[in-house]
Amino acid sequence: MNYFDLDGITTPITSLTFPELNMEIHVKRDDLLPFSFGGNKVRIALEFLNDMRAKGKNCLIGYGNPRSNLSRALANLCASQGVPCKLLAPSEEHGGFIETANSRLVASLNTEVFRCEKYEVAPAVDAVTEQCRNEGLDPYYIYGDRYGKGNEAVPVRAYAKSYREIADGEYDYIFLPTGTGMTQSGLIAGALECGGKEKIIGISVARNKEKAEAVIERSVTAYFAEQGKAFTDRDRICVEDDWLCGEYGLYDAEIEQTIDLAFHRYGLPLDPTYTGKAFRGMLEYIRRNSLQNKKILFLHTGGTPLFFDYLASKSEKNGD
Amino acid sequence: MNYFDLDGITTPITSLTFPELNMEIHVKRDDLLPFSFGGNKVRIALEFLNDMRAKGKNCLIGYGNPRSNLSRALANLCASQGVPCKLLAPSEEHGGFIETANSRLVASLNTEVFRCEKYEVAPAVDAVTEQCRNEGLDPYYIYGDRYGKGNEAVPVRAYAKSYREIADGEYDYIFLPTGTGMTQSGLIAGALECGGKEKIIGISVARNKEKAEAVIERSVTAYFAEQGKAFTDRDRICVEDDWLCGEYGLYDAEIEQTIDLAFHRYGLPLDPTYTGKAFRGMLEYIRRNSLQNKKILFLHTGGTPLFFDYLASKSEKNGD
Repeated sequence: MNYFDLDGITTPITSLTFPELNMEIHVKRDDLLPFSFGGNKVRIALEFLNDMRAKGKNCLIGYGNPRSNLSRALANLCASQGVPCKLLAPSEEHGGFIETANSRLVASLNTEVFRCEKYEVAPAVDAVTEQCRNEGLDPYYIYGDRYGKGNEAVPVRAYAKSYREIADGEYDYIFLPTGTGMTQSGLIAGALECGGKEKIIGISVARNKEKAEAVIERSVTAYFAEQGKAFTDRDRICVEDDWLCGEYGLYDAEIEQTIDLAFHRYGLPLDPTYTGKAFRGMLEYIRRNSLQNKKILFLHTGGTPLFFDYLASKSEKNGD
Repeated sequence: MNYFDLDGITTPITSLTFPELNMEIHVKRDDLLPFSFGGNKVRIALEFLNDMRAKGKNCLIGYGNPRSNLSRALANLCASQGVPCKLLAPSEEHGGFIETANSRLVASLNTEVFRCEKYEVAPAVDAVTEQCRNEGLDPYYIYGDRYGKGNEAVPVRAYAKSYREIADGEYDYIFLPTGTGMTQSGLIAGALECGGKEKIIGISVARNKEKAEAVIERSVTAYFAEQGKAFTDRDRICVEDDWLCGEYGLYDAEIEQTIDLAFHRYGLPLDPTYTGKAFRGMLEYIRRNSLQNKKILFLHTGGTPLFFDYLASKSEKNGD
């Protein structure tokens, strides 16, 4: 039984008035995708599950921190579709395990978590694969082979499809948070397929510009290679790392102010790791480049559980 | 500046397959209303703000616990519209103040909270009104006069309007959580105005059947009285209290199992106080009455912050 698919589901686009920029900002609310608090990772996790089925497999092996949105989306979709889910989780760098809303949800969703060191993922993939086979299962590792190669095109499909939901908007700019680059790669692929001319600007939340753009180039190339096509429009790739704020997970007072403004004025939840960091970067980009009379879309990539973690952590800091 | 209104916004209706009931259950996802985690209280709070403006006032006085969904919705809409917001909050019955996601949000939204005893609300309304006037403001108390009378029709408008979003569905049954009865009153009023014939069944989360139905009768009567009409269809009022689970806020293992099932299978967040309690009641009602071949809608009235409170509390109970 498959209890959820995306057929016929679109997410709303709301419009936020920014008088200080003399501008409207449209927000594609993928956080309102009606499954597991939505977000880009629900669309991407669905592509992995579809690919697993297409390859005749019956058990999914994920890789990621149980605190991540992808881990939660994979765990929930597997639970929804009755697919056994195993999660390879990198050991914690900074001492003990920190519990968050996502990790609590992953734990509640009957996902079997295997810890491994970051430098020995390949043998860990082998070991979990072996265990699945001993359980009579035929496993699928989301990232391809034991070295995490071969499946680069699959997550790109999510936003190549989803781009069609925004194509009619004829935006001048699309901004989004860019981490692994899977979502931005999909938007670029979708725009090329649909003839979209907008600038697609990823605000990096994890990597420097060079590295982030190189990963996107590989992903989009893999996506088109599947169709026997070459990807030659490298100038469509743009990641800005000026608002990375050090590294993944770090944030500053300006990001916090952006989160406050978005919630107070627009009832819009943002989190400091992805959407809040990227929204702040977008506002700065607009100011720096004096953009006017442009139609701008921000892709809200979800992460509602992170908003509530942030809310609780602020309260703890205040000694409440 | 008004940064949010409902013009052109509809929430999705998703369909959940329940093989054990041989039935589909449609869910109106008002939790996905794109402002402040949505829910019925956002629609109701908007009606209070519209009424405040219609009456030429410029400051809102609410009444309720800062942990409530209504307090959060009022505080956020006031912040969004630049309207000063004062909240009369009943003193805690059970000792110290318990912080929750809603109370944290209310605190962050610049809402001035005044504590009062439940048996002396009227003088507290007077005192806050006086203070507002001293600040040069012209205040509006959401519930009417100092005794909380006179504004019964206003919150009913929210779901009398919103009923039109579901009228085309031609449902046989609409189920929803019923607390104060404002939402159910609105649905009944809307159905009468649109000629809807479905059964509208409130699963009580707070009051016994008799008291809950009497409050709804007064509210719907007030709504139609504003239009110079009589409300005579008292047989349209139905509240079931068999699944109240003692009193407001209490829940049992069956409600917890319902919440688990809804999230695991459908990625649908429910909370133990409102939607989880009501969803469980609906499932039992369907079984008890052997409903088959009926088209059923569940109105998800929101409360995402309560889902995350519940998630954190479960984790604390487990000693994590």
